[in-house]
Amino acid sequence: MKRIAVLTSGGDAPGMNAAIRGVVDQAAHHGIEVFGVFYGYKGLVEGDFRKLTIEDCQDKIRRGGTFLYSARYPEFKEEAYQLKAVEQMKSNEIDALIVIGGDGTFNGALQLQKVGFPIIGIPGTIDNDIPGTEYTIGFDTATNVALEEIDRISDTAASHNRTFVVEVMGRHAGDIATWAGVASGADSIIIPEADFDMEDVVRRVNNGRKSGKDHSIIVLAEGVMGVNEFVRNFKLVDPEHSIRGVTLAHIQRGGSPTARDRVFATLMGAKAVDALLNGQNGIYMGIRGEQLATFDIAETLQEKSHIVRHDLYQLNLDLTDK
Amino acid sequence: MKRIAVLTSGGDAPGMNAAIRGVVDQAAHHGIEVFGVFYGYKGLVEGDFRKLTIEDCQDKIRRGGTFLYSARYPEFKEEAYQLKAVEQMKSNEIDALIVIGGDGTFNGALQLQKVGFPIIGIPGTIDNDIPGTEYTIGFDTATNVALEEIDRISDTAASHNRTFVVEVMGRHAGDIATWAGVASGADSIIIPEADFDMEDVVRRVNNGRKSGKDHSIIVLAEGVMGVNEFVRNFKLVDPEHSIRGVTLAHIQRGGSPTARDRVFATLMGAKAVDALLNGQNGIYMGIRGEQLATFDIAETLQEKSHIVRHDLYQLNLDLTDK
Amino acid sequence: MKRIAVLTSGGDAPGMNAAIRGVVDQAAHHGIEVFGVFYGYKGLVEGDFRKLTIEDCQDKIRRGGTFLYSARYPEFKEEAYQLKAVEQMKSNEIDALIVIGGDGTFNGALQLQKVGFPIIGIPGTIDNDIPGTEYTIGFDTATNVALEEIDRISDTAASHNRTFVVEVMGRHAGDIATWAGVASGADSIIIPEADFDMEDVVRRVNNGRKSGKDHSIIVLAEGVMGVNEFVRNFKLVDPEHSIRGVTLAHIQRGGSPTARDRVFATLMGAKAVDALLNGQNGIYMGIRGEQLATFDIAETLQEKSHIVRHDLYQLNLDLTDK
Amino acid sequence: MKRIAVLTSGGDAPGMNAAIRGVVDQAAHHGIEVFGVFYGYKGLVEGDFRKLTIEDCQDKIRRGGTFLYSARYPEFKEEAYQLKAVEQMKSNEIDALIVIGGDGTFNGALQLQKVGFPIIGIPGTIDNDIPGTEYTIGFDTATNVALEEIDRISDTAASHNRTFVVEVMGRHAGDIATWAGVASGADSIIIPEADFDMEDVVRRVNNGRKSGKDHSIIVLAEGVMGVNEFVRNFKLVDPEHSIRGVTLAHIQRGGSPTARDRVFATLMGAKAVDALLNGQNGIYMGIRGEQLATFDIAETLQEKSHIVRHDLYQLNLDLTDK
Repeated sequence: MKRIAVLTSGGDAPGMNAAIRGVVDQAAHHGIEVFGVFYGYKGLVEGDFRKLTIEDCQDKIRRGGTFLYSARYPEFKEEAYQLKAVEQMKSNEIDALIVIGGDGTFNGALQLQKVGFPIIGIPGTIDNDIPGTEYTIGFDTATNVALEEIDRISDTAASHNRTFVVEVMGRHAGDIATWAGVASGADSIIIPEADFDMEDVVRRVNNGRKSGKDHSIIVLAEGVMGVNEFVRNFKLVDPEHSIRGVTLAHIQRGGSPTARDRVFATLMGAKAVDALLNGQNGIYMGIRGEQLATFDIAETLQEKSHIVRHDLYQLNLDLTDK
Repeated sequence: MKRIAVLTSGGDAPGMNAAIRGVVDQAAHHGIEVFGVFYGYKGLVEGDFRKLTIEDCQDKIRRGGTFLYSARYPEFKEEAYQLKAVEQMKSNEIDALIVIGGDGTFNGALQLQKVGFPIIGIPGTIDNDIPGTEYTIGFDTATNVALEEIDRISDTAASHNRTFVVEVMGRHAGDIATWAGVASGADSIIIPEADFDMEDVVRRVNNGRKSGKDHSIIVLAEGVMGVNEFVRNFKLVDPEHSIRGVTLAHIQRGGSPTARDRVFATLMGAKAVDALLNGQNGIYMGIRGEQLATFDIAETLQEKSHIVRHDLYQLNLDLTDK
Repeated sequence: MKRIAVLTSGGDAPGMNAAIRGVVDQAAHHGIEVFGVFYGYKGLVEGDFRKLTIEDCQDKIRRGGTFLYSARYPEFKEEAYQLKAVEQMKSNEIDALIVIGGDGTFNGALQLQKVGFPIIGIPGTIDNDIPGTEYTIGFDTATNVALEEIDRISDTAASHNRTFVVEVMGRHAGDIATWAGVASGADSIIIPEADFDMEDVVRRVNNGRKSGKDHSIIVLAEGVMGVNEFVRNFKLVDPEHSIRGVTLAHIQRGGSPTARDRVFATLMGAKAVDALLNGQNGIYMGIRGEQLATFDIAETLQEKSHIVRHDLYQLNLDLTDK
Repeated sequence: MKRIAVLTSGGDAPGMNAAIRGVVDQAAHHGIEVFGVFYGYKGLVEGDFRKLTIEDCQDKIRRGGTFLYSARYPEFKEEAYQLKAVEQMKSNEIDALIVIGGDGTFNGALQLQKVGFPIIGIPGTIDNDIPGTEYTIGFDTATNVALEEIDRISDTAASHNRTFVVEVMGRHAGDIATWAGVASGADSIIIPEADFDMEDVVRRVNNGRKSGKDHSIIVLAEGVMGVNEFVRNFKLVDPEHSIRGVTLAHIQRGGSPTARDRVFATLMGAKAVDALLNGQNGIYMGIRGEQLATFDIAETLQEKSHIVRHDLYQLNLDLTDK
């Protein structure tokens, strides 16, 4: 193996640049060249490659987003495009590809493996919703950004004795909501993986006030419902309650990655190179019990559900039940 | 003068606690007691007073919001309530009142002055929209929070080569938008104090891209229009443009105040006490040319317009015009 | 069990307040009262107790340090003082004690257990050096603060093409150095758990420069040697090298805790209450493989060595070896 | 004027990159090319020039340090080197030079002006110590970083009821100390521009404790004395006092610039270009009363003293005197 390529695809996540750095530095250690593919699968098909240097990566490790860029590219579902991608890599003497992204990204990689090209995946998505691994790149940063914003909102909520519903990201996964909720001392956490009863939510909020709290926070994962709908439903139960909704939206995606996101991203990037050298293919690098672990991509894409921290969700239920 | 009171009213702003600290510590220096009025004018009428200690303030100086709380209280427009407030203060042997807030807060104080009670104002509102002073408490923090969020959004915008419209606070004033816009290198800044032409906005954004920028930022003050309406109007001019809107909302109000907000708030709080000792009444403490200055509240409330940084707005127009 | 007490002791760590909150809220859930002991074992002996409310904790969860305070108290090694402490608790009808701190704190608790009083420990120390658990409260925040400072130093280092040696905390444990070092893309990481060769460090730094890096960072755990001594030794090998040292010192201990520190601290606090209710005694709550786990305190104190992330240390060696 | 150059020199300061951006974007607006000079006067003599694009600057505006780098270069005091620099610029058809830095940088520019080359200065130094202007680039960021660190140290100080002496930058100017000190509620501020009496400092600290404060902060500008010496002297007066010293050192120089630093840097950069177009020469761009102002460089270098905020220093004296 003399030359490999790396791309990012799908939604950006803080720490992706650290993963690229892990790939480039570890490859240099083994005397392998790394080509960056710009704009994900689109760039792969169009041959938008550039040799990456250690210098390129040094400065980017602390930046959010991905300096290889990302792009939507539905065409890649067609085999003709997949074959074109392989052709581009072969004509550039690239022996293997590392992809960084979520399940859509992994699916693209699986197609390349099926047509005979070696690939390894790295899970990059703030939602932490990939089956198998307990951790995906960007989750820790997104959670800490969400927490910082909830802390800010708490200042205003407290000043006016208000309840705020804060909508955080998570279409299918309540991980950001659960961690940011427990960390901020939220009165209620609403996630897609668990049913909730609005009467019960209202009761917890009001009991918290009776216990002396000067404001209340509800953390809502976007996958459950929109924040405006939630506020309306809350008001059906307690019409006089002073309650506001706020959506964190794209703020959570960016920002300088945390130590954890940079370290695990670097580790997975470096170990993806080692895995390729060991002849591995069709797997992705993940974390299980805080240690590096590998998972089969094909199996992962057939899994329906990611790992859920029911213990933390239950912890919040206990702590707010008086 | 042996005992004074202080209250916060209207929307909370980071630095209000530092102003309270300035009042309490300077009063202690002069041997005067300070009573905190909880929940603004409502607490004033209801007699919700508590003696403030140096210890109370030490810990709060770095917190956003107001630890004296705030509350809506439209009743205070009626003279009966104003007289009740004066009665409460007199029965507690309070000789004068310092109010911290925006123009609604100042208006309440003016009524008290009219019925014969000594008052001094301190401008606390993130919008920076009070006529006379160049600076209001919370503006610097809100601007830096807005900037930090725009930086985060830029990571995502760049990763996908997108344009983001970021709606910041400012119903009548474009100060947050102007400062955060210039600071973030925005392609366009839209404020209530200046007309804009959407064709021109689109041209600037697209020219920026032609010059090599990998993303674009438009900063929009809420007073102009909502962000969704803005995005729709933008798309009427350039329908294929990849553009998204995001609203920072309440996030901007909270958070630990900056050095500037804490220093000027402390200065104004301390000097308000000195002003009362000097027999001044009906004025508010402000900043002009970076120095402490005082302004007449009655005149201020008749003024229509605050100071606008047209030079910075024009600077952005120049910098983005190629 | 009707009433329990909680104390913090030893060096403060961000997240201790969240652990206290976990104790108080979970106890309230079970209908148990919690008394806070102020100033650690000193307060225990002197009976400096106060009932803690949910309101007390709400505001503190996001603050570094410990609102129960800490104090040095070597007297507690003597049995007379231990018996006095038990007496104080019994006369206040306190049935059990939860202690938050490092190995010194755990040792004090063990003495209380020996004289017949039920205790549970929670590991709170930024050094992450307690045998058994993979995680201690404050480690994640300290690592992220160290990383943020290294990022700042990198700006200056790059502007002048300099090498900076950054001394971080860790007398016996290189965890902060290892995580912050990998996360910042350090050229070398020096920890107490591994030997190093200065010739090799210099080679890595200079090779990094040849690869195009515009500055270099060496992260040094304080337990190895002081930063000035390190710089002198470096200069013995490469006398002309532009190298500076900086010590992060107490900065690392404070600051608002991260989501991870708050969540795990809350979890351990709550589960410590459950453990007491289950009749457990003499154990401490920890984390193993990202899940809650319990460990025997007596065994822990006989262990010599904590868990070391040799994989991450080796990762840095690989990444910087060209 | 068709082509100008820009360099940074001396110690780096956050916001220098925004000033470069102001130069480049405003020059583009006027159809002028900008060449970046790398490594300050050294690069000027050696002809280390590169054309700067809008793209170069977009990404750097939020980074601390200077992407044009800086370097020590005592040789530039000799006329032969100055003439060589002018020759390099002329052979590259560069018509004028903008320099960003402190008084050493301005002195170099003055020499170029004397040998007939048009120059404009921009004040970039975190110390805020340049005569004439009230503001220099980097001061606001450095102050806020110092404040953030003092807040962190306060967590630890409070947990152990300790006094911390925090040494901040400022060899000749106490501006960072004064602003960070007032903002953090420091018990004492020690600056080069004012004498102090250790007995008085100790009295203020101890009076603060008697008033209920749980810790104390003294902010010391480095120009007065080292922090260890200060702690020793403090202990001569109050030997039993629990007091520690910490030096912020290089941490203060870096980090993402604040809104204020970016806005004023951008303004000064853009207006420096306008000034060159207007035929101005030998001046520097500054801020007076929050507005852009220009100052003569030759006069500035003969001035002994910068503007000092005696009002804020006195404010601290009042607030801590009970």
